[in-house]
Amino acid sequence: RTLRIGLIPGDGIGREVIPAGRRILEALPASFKLKFSFVDLDAGFETFKQTGAALPDKTVDTLKNECDGALFGAVSSPSVKTEGYSSPIVALRKRLALYANVRPVRTVATAKSPVDLVIVRENTEDLYVKEEKTYDGPDGKVAEAIKRITEKASFNIAQMAGDIAVRRQRVRDSGAPSIHKQPLVTVTHKSNVLSQTDGLFRETARKALAQDAYKNVKVEEQIVDSMVYKLFRQPSDYDVIVAPNLYGDILSDGAAALVGSLGLVPSANVGKGFAIGEPCHGSAPDIEGKGIANPIATLRSTALMLEFMNEEAAAAAIYAAVDANLEEGKLLTPDMGGSAKTDEVVEDILKRL
Amino acid sequence: RTLRIGLIPGDGIGREVIPAGRRILEALPASFKLKFSFVDLDAGFETFKQTGAALPDKTVDTLKNECDGALFGAVSSPSVKTEGYSSPIVALRKRLALYANVRPVRTVATAKSPVDLVIVRENTEDLYVKEEKTYDGPDGKVAEAIKRITEKASFNIAQMAGDIAVRRQRVRDSGAPSIHKQPLVTVTHKSNVLSQTDGLFRETARKALAQDAYKNVKVEEQIVDSMVYKLFRQPSDYDVIVAPNLYGDILSDGAAALVGSLGLVPSANVGKGFAIGEPCHGSAPDIEGKGIANPIATLRSTALMLEFMNEEAAAAAIYAAVDANLEEGKLLTPDMGGSAKTDEVVEDILKRL
Ligand SMILES: CC(C)[C@H](C(=O)O)[C@@H](O)C(=O)O
Ligand SMILES: CC(C)[C@H](C(=O)O)[C@@H](O)C(=O)O
Repeated sequence: RTLRIGLIPGDGIGREVIPAGRRILEALPASFKLKFSFVDLDAGFETFKQTGAALPDKTVDTLKNECDGALFGAVSSPSVKTEGYSSPIVALRKRLALYANVRPVRTVATAKSPVDLVIVRENTEDLYVKEEKTYDGPDGKVAEAIKRITEKASFNIAQMAGDIAVRRQRVRDSGAPSIHKQPLVTVTHKSNVLSQTDGLFRETARKALAQDAYKNVKVEEQIVDSMVYKLFRQPSDYDVIVAPNLYGDILSDGAAALVGSLGLVPSANVGKGFAIGEPCHGSAPDIEGKGIANPIATLRSTALMLEFMNEEAAAAAIYAAVDANLEEGKLLTPDMGGSAKTDEVVEDILKRL
Repeated sequence: RTLRIGLIPGDGIGREVIPAGRRILEALPASFKLKFSFVDLDAGFETFKQTGAALPDKTVDTLKNECDGALFGAVSSPSVKTEGYSSPIVALRKRLALYANVRPVRTVATAKSPVDLVIVRENTEDLYVKEEKTYDGPDGKVAEAIKRITEKASFNIAQMAGDIAVRRQRVRDSGAPSIHKQPLVTVTHKSNVLSQTDGLFRETARKALAQDAYKNVKVEEQIVDSMVYKLFRQPSDYDVIVAPNLYGDILSDGAAALVGSLGLVPSANVGKGFAIGEPCHGSAPDIEGKGIANPIATLRSTALMLEFMNEEAAAAAIYAAVDANLEEGKLLTPDMGGSAKTDEVVEDILKRL
């Protein structure tokens, strides 16, 4: 099988980590019978400054017409309001109908406080529809934004969460060690305040997860504020957490803090038959150009992308190589308390493949 | 000075902790020259079930016409959608124009990882305007909610944050031990996605904090998702965090996790010349009726209410009595790993007053 992968480094350390994704794909043992070809694509604030478009049509078209999957690095946000600029990753998620953002947060098996959860974030609506307006009120300016929740997107994302819960349990049943015994989906919302929008999300998710396919999956609920509290107090209680877009955004950064560094946390933007791997860390202007960005989030995002292409064995090999590096704990980037360079960590992980 | 205090226990453990607030006010040493009278007021889901109104007009009118301040316990959320019910605390904040929700999160001075921050949450707008509608779309139901941000409320809340930063620094300058050397306000928003609404909050907060009164206050910004991450990785970096309503709600529960128990965290809903103290823990149906709710959040909320009535010395006495109980660490409720009852903890703290 030959897979064509779009590479969209974007801004900042995105440019330093995306090459690691390419390298690990090229280094996969021949036994997986996978070949890769790559196409470099533009997006980001730099691209905006050069071309006036943060997400060129060419990037979207190439992904749609040529690619089987992609890796996205990071984008910088302008530090002052910039007319005409808007986040290309948000646009990409919408234009390619990548309706789910999947963020597994997991410690290595030997960790003292083990965490093994995945946040399944709706990826196309909520406040991210970005329908805003500003007008003059009696006491100065007033700005409004629409938070939109649809039955359809809520149903789809809850199904995705259910499917992931079932798959995780299948892996556990096959003997993989885990802190969880039973699949659990926790539906997060704020329907005590937003009875219609988050109420619709809650009810629809309940309905989706009541389907027969999920009859072994336990379903619980948490109000988002209390979810953040519990995430920090008892993180090992959680397996799959499903949330509308903005809560999912906040929860996944919060969960990342549990494992020590955002530099470890992968994500995938998933649609029907297409996935874009994306490290969660952002463009990190403070360390840009130093060659010390942690490549692990990108390597794991590459594996996650492969999972959604049904290449689970190849994905497992990458996860295992990364875990071996972390368990040894000798070659680590500064965010992990080490002093290794990006490339040294990549070399070390490639050797373990 | 005689102060009349409204007592609104609400639901669940609200009824078990609000009496503690009354007791500590009555126990304040005569040297403070404060007298208190109390009036019991209804609100909550129980009240709704009995009367059809979660927040009776009588409660609002009595607070407006008779009271100098109040203590609010907690409200239960109905577990299924209940026609006509909506949260009375949200309504109360709006009807009394309590535009700021102030949530100090602080460890005792002897803690291993010290935290000393306060979250200043806008309390009247954002998604809490609760303007929602539901309609039929092409693929099922669609629900929308309005997120409204005004220049006026953003300016006021940023000023409140600036004032609190200045006051905290004054206390530090007078010799109180602290982990902070310089006053810092961190403005939290998501203007990389919500350029108009959160953009307005960000710009207005910047403008408010650029006033001369705050010239010694350092001002920084954090995107809300990254704020949650940093809050958990480097909590001691933060002094005053100001945020729109919903982010403030989430951040304050998150910050509460840093100090071990929501049962320790107070809040005050503050308007011009009026403050309602409110423990952050909610109605906690799981421990209701057992007499083991932690009274400390309420006792600290009582002190916080007094601060906003300019009774700082009396407030300091309550804080010190609570800290003495915590530092000794012998009489603790179960949420803190102890086995004491609510009343035993209250007695212990009263003795230390
Ligand atoms: C950069 C930003 C627009 C983005 C988001 O909010 O989705 C980021 O925080 C993320 O989580 O991928
Ligand atoms: C009960 C709920 C409506 C409330 C809120 O969201 O404001 C609570 O979470 C709080 O923080 O006081």
